[in-house]
Amino acid sequence: MQFLSDNAAPVHPAVWSAMLAADASDSPYDRDALSRELDGAFTSLFGQECSALWVATGTAANCLALAAMVPPHGGVVCHREAHIEADEGGAPGFYMHGAKLMLADGPSAKLTPDSISAVIDPIRDDVHQVQPHAVSITQASEYGCVYKPGELATISTLAREKGLRLHMDGARFANAVAHLGCPPAEACRGVDALTFGFVKNGGLGAEAVVFFEPGLVDVVRYRRKRAGHLQSKGRFLAAQILAMLEADLWLENGRAANAAASEIARAAGDRLLHPVEANEVFLTTSPQERAALREQGFSFYDWGDNAARLVTAWNTEADHVARLVNAIRAL
Amino acid sequence: MQFLSDNAAPVHPAVWSAMLAADASDSPYDRDALSRELDGAFTSLFGQECSALWVATGTAANCLALAAMVPPHGGVVCHREAHIEADEGGAPGFYMHGAKLMLADGPSAKLTPDSISAVIDPIRDDVHQVQPHAVSITQASEYGCVYKPGELATISTLAREKGLRLHMDGARFANAVAHLGCPPAEACRGVDALTFGFVKNGGLGAEAVVFFEPGLVDVVRYRRKRAGHLQSKGRFLAAQILAMLEADLWLENGRAANAAASEIARAAGDRLLHPVEANEVFLTTSPQERAALREQGFSFYDWGDNAARLVTAWNTEADHVARLVNAIRAL
Amino acid sequence: MQFLSDNAAPVHPAVWSAMLAADASDSPYDRDALSRELDGAFTSLFGQECSALWVATGTAANCLALAAMVPPHGGVVCHREAHIEADEGGAPGFYMHGAKLMLADGPSAKLTPDSISAVIDPIRDDVHQVQPHAVSITQASEYGCVYKPGELATISTLAREKGLRLHMDGARFANAVAHLGCPPAEACRGVDALTFGFVKNGGLGAEAVVFFEPGLVDVVRYRRKRAGHLQSKGRFLAAQILAMLEADLWLENGRAANAAASEIARAAGDRLLHPVEANEVFLTTSPQERAALREQGFSFYDWGDNAARLVTAWNTEADHVARLVNAIRAL
Amino acid sequence: MQFLSDNAAPVHPAVWSAMLAADASDSPYDRDALSRELDGAFTSLFGQECSALWVATGTAANCLALAAMVPPHGGVVCHREAHIEADEGGAPGFYMHGAKLMLADGPSAKLTPDSISAVIDPIRDDVHQVQPHAVSITQASEYGCVYKPGELATISTLAREKGLRLHMDGARFANAVAHLGCPPAEACRGVDALTFGFVKNGGLGAEAVVFFEPGLVDVVRYRRKRAGHLQSKGRFLAAQILAMLEADLWLENGRAANAAASEIARAAGDRLLHPVEANEVFLTTSPQERAALREQGFSFYDWGDNAARLVTAWNTEADHVARLVNAIRAL
Repeated sequence: MQFLSDNAAPVHPAVWSAMLAADASDSPYDRDALSRELDGAFTSLFGQECSALWVATGTAANCLALAAMVPPHGGVVCHREAHIEADEGGAPGFYMHGAKLMLADGPSAKLTPDSISAVIDPIRDDVHQVQPHAVSITQASEYGCVYKPGELATISTLAREKGLRLHMDGARFANAVAHLGCPPAEACRGVDALTFGFVKNGGLGAEAVVFFEPGLVDVVRYRRKRAGHLQSKGRFLAAQILAMLEADLWLENGRAANAAASEIARAAGDRLLHPVEANEVFLTTSPQERAALREQGFSFYDWGDNAARLVTAWNTEADHVARLVNAIRAL
Repeated sequence: MQFLSDNAAPVHPAVWSAMLAADASDSPYDRDALSRELDGAFTSLFGQECSALWVATGTAANCLALAAMVPPHGGVVCHREAHIEADEGGAPGFYMHGAKLMLADGPSAKLTPDSISAVIDPIRDDVHQVQPHAVSITQASEYGCVYKPGELATISTLAREKGLRLHMDGARFANAVAHLGCPPAEACRGVDALTFGFVKNGGLGAEAVVFFEPGLVDVVRYRRKRAGHLQSKGRFLAAQILAMLEADLWLENGRAANAAASEIARAAGDRLLHPVEANEVFLTTSPQERAALREQGFSFYDWGDNAARLVTAWNTEADHVARLVNAIRAL
Repeated sequence: MQFLSDNAAPVHPAVWSAMLAADASDSPYDRDALSRELDGAFTSLFGQECSALWVATGTAANCLALAAMVPPHGGVVCHREAHIEADEGGAPGFYMHGAKLMLADGPSAKLTPDSISAVIDPIRDDVHQVQPHAVSITQASEYGCVYKPGELATISTLAREKGLRLHMDGARFANAVAHLGCPPAEACRGVDALTFGFVKNGGLGAEAVVFFEPGLVDVVRYRRKRAGHLQSKGRFLAAQILAMLEADLWLENGRAANAAASEIARAAGDRLLHPVEANEVFLTTSPQERAALREQGFSFYDWGDNAARLVTAWNTEADHVARLVNAIRAL
Repeated sequence: MQFLSDNAAPVHPAVWSAMLAADASDSPYDRDALSRELDGAFTSLFGQECSALWVATGTAANCLALAAMVPPHGGVVCHREAHIEADEGGAPGFYMHGAKLMLADGPSAKLTPDSISAVIDPIRDDVHQVQPHAVSITQASEYGCVYKPGELATISTLAREKGLRLHMDGARFANAVAHLGCPPAEACRGVDALTFGFVKNGGLGAEAVVFFEPGLVDVVRYRRKRAGHLQSKGRFLAAQILAMLEADLWLENGRAANAAASEIARAAGDRLLHPVEANEVFLTTSPQERAALREQGFSFYDWGDNAARLVTAWNTEADHVARLVNAIRAL
């Protein structure tokens, strides 16, 4: 029973159908009919003018967005445990040509205005120190915690005051919106560019970078090609994204994953390391307890020595969840 | 009737089947069972120990390979009309961190030992001039022409003598092997790394970088992740490649595309700008003649003012070829 | 008798005096009194508002200027024989993070509007091809030839029309102005940034980058530090430059070097490969003739198999020139 | 009375003499007689085969050395307060093409085996995380503290065991050796490359990068040119370094600066934030106390809200020290 990673989940049938339907020959790269629908689809979803590009991975999406915001001699404030810092193999340094990640703290891997200020305020405004040009936040965070609209507002206000761009890594944006129960625009208000993730949520290999700030997208078109991310049969990436947006499948899938995680969370009680607001459960457990769970057929990652990370996905089976709930209660 | 690009062709049914069959949950990234089969599959195909990594695009494949061969302060000799120089949006400069493409000449976009020497011999061996570290050749070339084993041997001998690595862009490697009728290893003998293309030949979004020189692959594993090209559902890329290798589907598809091009070539006679050895036909034509062809429903690119580029694919219909042959004859 | 390189010449006594006079302790980096005089000194020299930064080498000066004009995914048109292409060890690729040099032709290493257009006009305006963002010209050129104000005007007009920035490598700007006999501003009219060379002309290790386009200098302040070119005792670089500007010493030195070259040129007659407009003489000569000159004590570089390059400097002795003139006549 | 920075100190008379003596024309770049003496001079100083290159700044020296040790996808462990992290304007990211600085702790800005292990041990050996390739330590540290030979040995042993290169930023290497009273080789035993600083210690604009590990220097020769740091009149940089090495002037100057700092330290008593082992004194002081010192004519930097940084130099006058000692005692 798979609680290892939403990355490992299968592709949603509607995504397969859309890909198969896109098979007929069309113009290569992003000049096909489907790719040309993306701007409209996201504009309609967010209720505001925006542009969107497909790309195969979240790492590429994040880094292309950041590289459009930050010059090589600049820096980006992000959480010490952000994916761009901890799990992207140095991709930000590559895409931004050596620009610096400036590591901030904050509970459950979320930044706060104070934790951002603690990083940027001591920076002397001279050429000897790298100057911040952007802030990157993750919705939901690495620990599955969600920025509420009010929290977002304080961060985007600070960013604007300090002349910093704001990027959101939304690898689990669907789970965040499902948790908040608000219009998607509320979950990313004030953001200049959003990495909107689909792969963890039923897609095969397509994420969107959505630009609310005009001007950024034009640079990224060139940079996407330059990074080898302009696939020649791009219609298959556009098809995945459009299928996920259709009838809010992305949201439905996010809700399903969240619901499974919530059920597990209820069983976990005091064992929870972080509030469960998305599809990740961090569970205080001894090595013996984790061994016991694994013996019963549950697969998951250790999180340090004293915890387990369990991730649900759009397709997590109710029966697996029920069995896990029982197993946790029995620990 | 589509003669615009093999990039625009549909995905082969066997590739679809393999992808669908790979849908069951497996480990993310390249730790799944299929990705782990790649080394063996290519070792068996080439009859020599090699390692292989999947990647979504030919641009990424070429540039990852080159970046493992060439330090940032070095250079790569390639043809003035090579894809890496003319059509990859500066990706080599990005991946190689500013290393230089050194442009050489040669008939039909093929390098020769003489044309390589013409570039590298005048370079002074001092720190004021960028030193060459590798040669990159394209099999088949941008003009659809194929390096014969003997031609390859003279180039790889020169490269070895000069201490240069040898890279082959095999976006149309299948068409080259189909033309040569030799074992695949003969079509890339002496090469350190080969970009083995599948997307133009029936794939969806997966190419292989094959390393014959041990040591290169380990660096590229890190660089692939760093470039945002390590897809989390990598099993779907491995599945495409394995399906193409199965029962030599890649070769069968290459032969089909070549056969269609040959038929067109026979009709073209003196109009041919280059020998037709793969799946591209460059046809001297006036603007009026091209307009006439387009009126009859043929789509293709202009090649400068006085020629058309017509590309066939694995699925080019016999009927379309027959009609094109007639139309060309009638010009 | 030294005709090898103006790089090898000694430092002018006035430069030494100024450096010694700057020895008293002052603020480090560029916060000292002398460094703060540079903007004013160049504004006064050029009769227009400009900013200037010191840097130790022409390579750094050229590349810092270009990197402020060209994004990593862009390109710079320059002459095939420009110093940035042929003799800076790939520094432009480093400083511009992989941006591309686009090589153009032109007589005596000078660009023309036509030769620039021949490079940029065929570039498709799509993401597959690197787009030009700037033009770099060299005043005087690698072959010691000078752009006249009218020639400059046609190039700067073209650049403006095409939205390209204009950079001038003025490693031998003094020799160019001395030749033209015009106000310095006329010799670089329309240029956004000028590398104003002093080292070849009596300096020790200080060049200026002069920015006529506001906005560029602020980025370069950060980039200079980031490149390790912000020397902590910067006052000694500023002192050199100010000493050279004082009473137009730079121009006097340029005239002296030019005069020596002109005298040699008159002796050379039909042997000249290029018009002698600055301080370089390219002389058609057989290997035997060059051996004969060397036996008489003249040092210089071979220029290919059939020519010699002779360079004069601010301190070239009249007696050495006279002897060389005789030796050439006697060949 | 100047206690602001050793960067602001004048040039030692012996350095001036050597520069003036080098004025005669010689080969450009580093092919002059003096530059060719460097390898021998350092080999003799350290009693072991090594190679040395001049470069104008410590930032360039550090970053050229690191870039020869660390691939773009790798990382360097350094102290959170190291100069390369805090005061070089992002130069390491530029020179290393995006490689990562991995920040470690340790008392008085010195690393320890434990603090290094705390950074590298948690790094998973997979492509998702940047892998460490080198360690960089500073001798003396940012807080003027010195690694003893035994401390060095534990660090170099750890580095060797983990396959990491070891770099030493020796901007104040002279002060460290003066403090240790050991042969210079003991103060950098186990290091692969040493930045040997001269500018803070009586030089004008020349530092040396000394390579104990063969192979590194050859890459750096190219990289130095590529970074615009190969000055054309390099003989003046070599002359400075040779003058400093002559009769151990570097050590004499280091001792003088240290002695001045020690005297101040004795007066400071409990106010010292760090042991005074080199030429920097960090003094707990209230804003009022600092104002009082400034009123008496002492210039220095604030170090946060509650401390002052006072730096002595080779030329700090005994009278100034005496007055400062009295002023501190009178606080």
